[in-house]
Order: sequence, then C-alpha cells, then structure tokens
Amino acid sequence: MESHLRDRDGITETTPPEMEGSMSKRKITISEIAEESGLSIATVSKVLNGRPDVSDVTRSKIQNIIVAKGYRRRSVPEPQAPFIDVVFEEFESPWAVEIVRGAMSAAQNYGFTVALTSLSEGDERRVWFDQITSRGTKGILLLLAQITHDQRAELYSRRLPFVVIDPRGEPDPLVNSVGATNWAGGREATKHLLDLGHRRIAIITGPADLLSARARLDGYRAALEAGGLVIDDDLCRWGNFHLEGGYAQAKLLFALPQPPTAIFAGSDLQALGVLQAAREQNLRVPEDLSLVGFDDLPISQWSSPPLTTVHQPIGEMASLAVKILIDSSKDRNLGEQRIELATHLVIRESTAPLITT
Amino acid sequence: MESHLRDRDGITETTPPEMEGSMSKRKITISEIAEESGLSIATVSKVLNGRPDVSDVTRSKIQNIIVAKGYRRRSVPEPQAPFIDVVFEEFESPWAVEIVRGAMSAAQNYGFTVALTSLSEGDERRVWFDQITSRGTKGILLLLAQITHDQRAELYSRRLPFVVIDPRGEPDPLVNSVGATNWAGGREATKHLLDLGHRRIAIITGPADLLSARARLDGYRAALEAGGLVIDDDLCRWGNFHLEGGYAQAKLLFALPQPPTAIFAGSDLQALGVLQAAREQNLRVPEDLSLVGFDDLPISQWSSPPLTTVHQPIGEMASLAVKILIDSSKDRNLGEQRIELATHLVIRESTAPLITT
Repeated sequence: MESHLRDRDGITETTPPEMEGSMSKRKITISEIAEESGLSIATVSKVLNGRPDVSDVTRSKIQNIIVAKGYRRRSVPEPQAPFIDVVFEEFESPWAVEIVRGAMSAAQNYGFTVALTSLSEGDERRVWFDQITSRGTKGILLLLAQITHDQRAELYSRRLPFVVIDPRGEPDPLVNSVGATNWAGGREATKHLLDLGHRRIAIITGPADLLSARARLDGYRAALEAGGLVIDDDLCRWGNFHLEGGYAQAKLLFALPQPPTAIFAGSDLQALGVLQAAREQNLRVPEDLSLVGFDDLPISQWSSPPLTTVHQPIGEMASLAVKILIDSSKDRNLGEQRIELATHLVIRESTAPLITT
Repeated sequence: MESHLRDRDGITETTPPEMEGSMSKRKITISEIAEESGLSIATVSKVLNGRPDVSDVTRSKIQNIIVAKGYRRRSVPEPQAPFIDVVFEEFESPWAVEIVRGAMSAAQNYGFTVALTSLSEGDERRVWFDQITSRGTKGILLLLAQITHDQRAELYSRRLPFVVIDPRGEPDPLVNSVGATNWAGGREATKHLLDLGHRRIAIITGPADLLSARARLDGYRAALEAGGLVIDDDLCRWGNFHLEGGYAQAKLLFALPQPPTAIFAGSDLQALGVLQAAREQNLRVPEDLSLVGFDDLPISQWSSPPLTTVHQPIGEMASLAVKILIDSSKDRNLGEQRIELATHLVIRESTAPLITT
C-alpha cells in the first residue's frame, strides 16, 4: 500500500506505510500534515524543526495536528553542542552543588552545557575517563579529585583542558587550579574569636591531604601566634569537612579537661555538626560556645543560630574555572594557572564575647 | 620544511611543520613519539586513543614523552554518548539537588550521562528547548517546570520522551509524571501531631499551583477532620517550600491571638525557616512548639533539633523517572504513566507531647 499525496506547492511525495513496534500504530507524514493543515511542506518542516520564523498561530495549528495524529520523524544526524564535564567524587556536599551551580551559570553564558559525572559509585577511573573523552567535551572541571601522573599525561595527550578546584596534595605547577584564600580565611576567623576575648580556641579542619584544610589550619596557627598564644595540639583536630566530622571532633573537644570556649569549625557543615554536639551537651551557642564556619553556604544563614562564617566565593571560583577551560580550548598555548579568590568574614549570631565567670 | 621519519615498522610518514597559535610552538607527531620511545606506531596510537591493551610501563613511557614534548592530534570525529537532560527552574533547592543525584546514579547504571539545564537565568524557553533537542538527547527530566500545550506538542513532534517530576497544575493524562504520596504524607504528619495531644495545629504548605502542595494540605485537612476537629483557616498558610516562606508564615502564625502549638511545615526547608522564627520568638522546639517537615533531606537530621519529617523517596523518584525515559526511548508506544512513590514518617526530636499548663 502506498499513498500518493499532493501538497499545496505541487510537490508529490510517495509515503511508505508506517509500521512501528508491535502495535503498528499509523503515524502521519509531513505531507499529510501539510495536506490537513492547508500549509506548505516548507512551513510544516519549519515547525517540526523548531525554527522561529513561523507565526504562533501556524505553529499551534500544526502542533495540534501532530498531537492528535502523531508524526513519524525520519532519523536525522544530530549536530553536537559543546559540553563541559564536571567530575566529582561526591555530589552530596552542598559545596559541590554550589560549584556545579556556578559552573552551569558560566557555561550557559558561553553557550556550553554542563554534563555531570560522579565517581561515587566506585567506578574504575578508566571508564569515566574514556566516556568523557570520547564524547567531545571541551574541558573538564575536577572537584576534589586526585589526579595521578598518568591521568594528567592522558589528558594532555588527548589535548583536553582541565581545571582542578580546591586541589589535594602538593600544588602542581603543571595543573590549572582554582581555590580560595584559605590561609587568610582561617586567619581572619581565628582573629575574630581572639578579638572577642577567647583564648581556648579550637580548630576542626578538613582532611590532611586537602590543601585547603592545611591552609586553614596554618591561618589559625598564624593568628594565635600573632596574638602571643601557644598552639595547644589538643585543640587542633582533623575532620572531614562533613557534618559527621564536626560532630565527632566536637564531642572529643567537649570531653577535654579544659574544653575550648570557641571553635573554628573549618567548614559550615562541620559547624552544623558542632551545633548538634553542643545541643546534646546542653551548651548554648553563642552564650557558652562561640562557633565560626567556613564557606558561607546558603544554609549557614538559616541554622539556629545563623553562623558566623568565612565567605568563600564558590560561584565565582566555578565561573573562573569554566572561563579558563574555554580559553584553554581556544588557545592551547596558554600557560597553567593557579588562582585564589579572596575570602571574607561574615559575622552572624554564632559568636559572642567571652564571658569570664 | 618537511621532516621525513622512519619508524621501526618501516612505515615512512611525511609530517608537515606544525604551526599553532601565535607562538608556533613545535609539537611532536605520532611517528616521532614512536621513534623516540622505540615503540611501534600501532602501540603509540593505542596509548593516544586510550586503549586498555597496553602495559602500564609502555603507557607511562609514551605519556612521559607526550608530557615533555607535547603532541598535535589530528581532529577526529567524536562518537556520541547518550544523554539525558535534566531541566529545572532553580538548582538552589536541596530538593532539586537530590533529584539530580538520583537521576545521575540511575543514568550512569544505564551508561547515560546527565546534562543540566537551568532556566533560572531568565532564558527564553525556546532557546534551551532548541539547544537540548538539537544535541540528540534521549529524554528530558523536567523539575517543577510548567509545560505549555505548545511545548508538549513540540516534544511529541520531535519524539522526545519526557517525564515531569512533581508536576504543577492539573494532572495531565498525556504527560509522564513521577511524584510521592503527598496526601498520605500530609495526613500522617498531622495525625502524629494529633496523637501527641496537639489541637491547634497549623500547616504551611507550598505554592497553590503545585499539586504536591495541595495534596499535603488536603492530607492535613483529612487528618484533622478524622480527629473530629474543625479546620481553622487562620492556621492554613500557603508558603513557597523555601526557607523564607516558612519563616514569614511562622511569624504570622506566632502573632495570632491563639497561636498554634504545632506546625506541619510542608517541607524541610520551610521547617528550618520556622525554627529560625521560633528562635527569634524565644520559643523552644519541641518544648513550646512541635514541628514536622516534609522531604527528609539530608540536612533535616542535622538541624537543631533534628527534624521529625515525612520521608519522600526522592532518589527513587528520580531513578524511576530515568527508567521511564529510557524505556520510552526504546519503545515509542508505551503509554503515559503517573506514578506515586510511598512516603513515611520519620520521628526525630522536633515533636513532643503537648504540655497543658
């Protein structure tokens, strides 16, 4: 069975019968839509291809026919849109979410789309790597991922620009990276507590292999030493930048013979963990314990009490990383960059002057 | 200038001089890497293409040369990897983040990548629509997005499967959608407060055009009526499912001549807003005010106090939506589906028996 249709422009098309799946549901062809709508094939084609130069009335008319009768599209080669890949080890953290949001906003300005890959499922590195490199990405944003020498070499050999945000390990001059002024932020947080009269000030920083965690700790030490205080190792704790880390380390701090009167929690999530531990200990914040976070995540202003914290320009860091990727993809000879964006203290309600009894 | 090189396998290649960018930095060719490494062109090629059948020693050797000297790759056509697009109006909400996480996890199991598009920048709908449909997506996950009749028709005409998560407006039999048992969840939350002895129970639900918001309100009403109580309109509030909405509506509730002793906050974020308003009012939770959230976001167990809330299986909803998309992309004749996944109450520390004084 073949149907011969003549559209208004006089073009004759031969349409084969449409059989699809087991239901053999008959779908309408482009010629038939033209026929039924009384419009030209060219116009119908414009609507089907999403072209803007069609009036709303015409578009609606054609779409109504399509919805009512269905339409069988021939498969067409799809053009590629440029991608940037964001690869992270964990998407749980609001920090990673803020990065993705900033990257997405910047990428959209350049007409790029953000594709996400999580390594949290215990994938082999080679698998994600091959997937990403095979689909024509313009560049890769790596969050907290450890880059081995081989992986770096492979990215180079495939000529794929990449930027590491908040890198682990030693600073690598061969790798683009973006971070915040973690040392200065740690110093400012601690100085704020000193200025309020606190002397027993603890820090819970992040994992020891994270540059940002070490820099925050060193900033804390620098502030204490500038204030003429001796560093008490009991008050320096390694956490994991997560709620659980803040909670567990705060419990240990509260159990000390001489517990701290103030805690610089290293991250907002750890500060929330400290809040919970304080609540269980019947310690009021800030009356009995002053608390400073780091990051200024949206949630920090909605905790009870709202957190005094160090603002990290996470969105700007991600935007900058995207810009470096796009610049690098255009000019392969750009040198590697390490950029740190400035932090600043935001004072809310979780810190108060030390009350000596 | 041309250089003639002979590799170990006896193949002669003519390599043109490499000029790139303004710096005309000389890059090495595949023949030269073979020459320098003493390995065959076939082996070098395997490493450059990321093939696994090369020993680590060989791979390292070649990558070291590449890192040291650079390599100029000829542009090759890139194969396409299958994409699923997640389109949302706002990425700020932890709820949207949980959906993305669940979608990503499910998509990765199927070998799909998740691409993100945010409409928050005030883009014209047509732009994102054209971008997504032009890059060969296998399907679209729509979060809280309003689908117009025209857009739906266009998705149909382009034969793109789509699923709406937690839809707005009237249930649309022509659209796949996934949600939670919002009515049952609202009912269970309210019944829990009734069982604790509360009688002045308020609700702050979400925007009136969101099905889930209306269903939670109706569940609340059903529980009160089953308990023999009359609905007090003063205690029924429309919020926005965000922190600000919970905060603002709680302020109004506390200012009533007869304020509530318990609030079902409609969402965890709204519950956090209520907590802040309560703190400002010197109301203790749960001693002076019982509070129930909805969603069971990760943050809900870390608020002070941890929230009693209605668990919504957000990850499972997203996984199911991805599965529907992939099934639909394989079999165009599948019917439209509306699926609701079960909620359940999680009792933590923000609710307590009413103390009558």
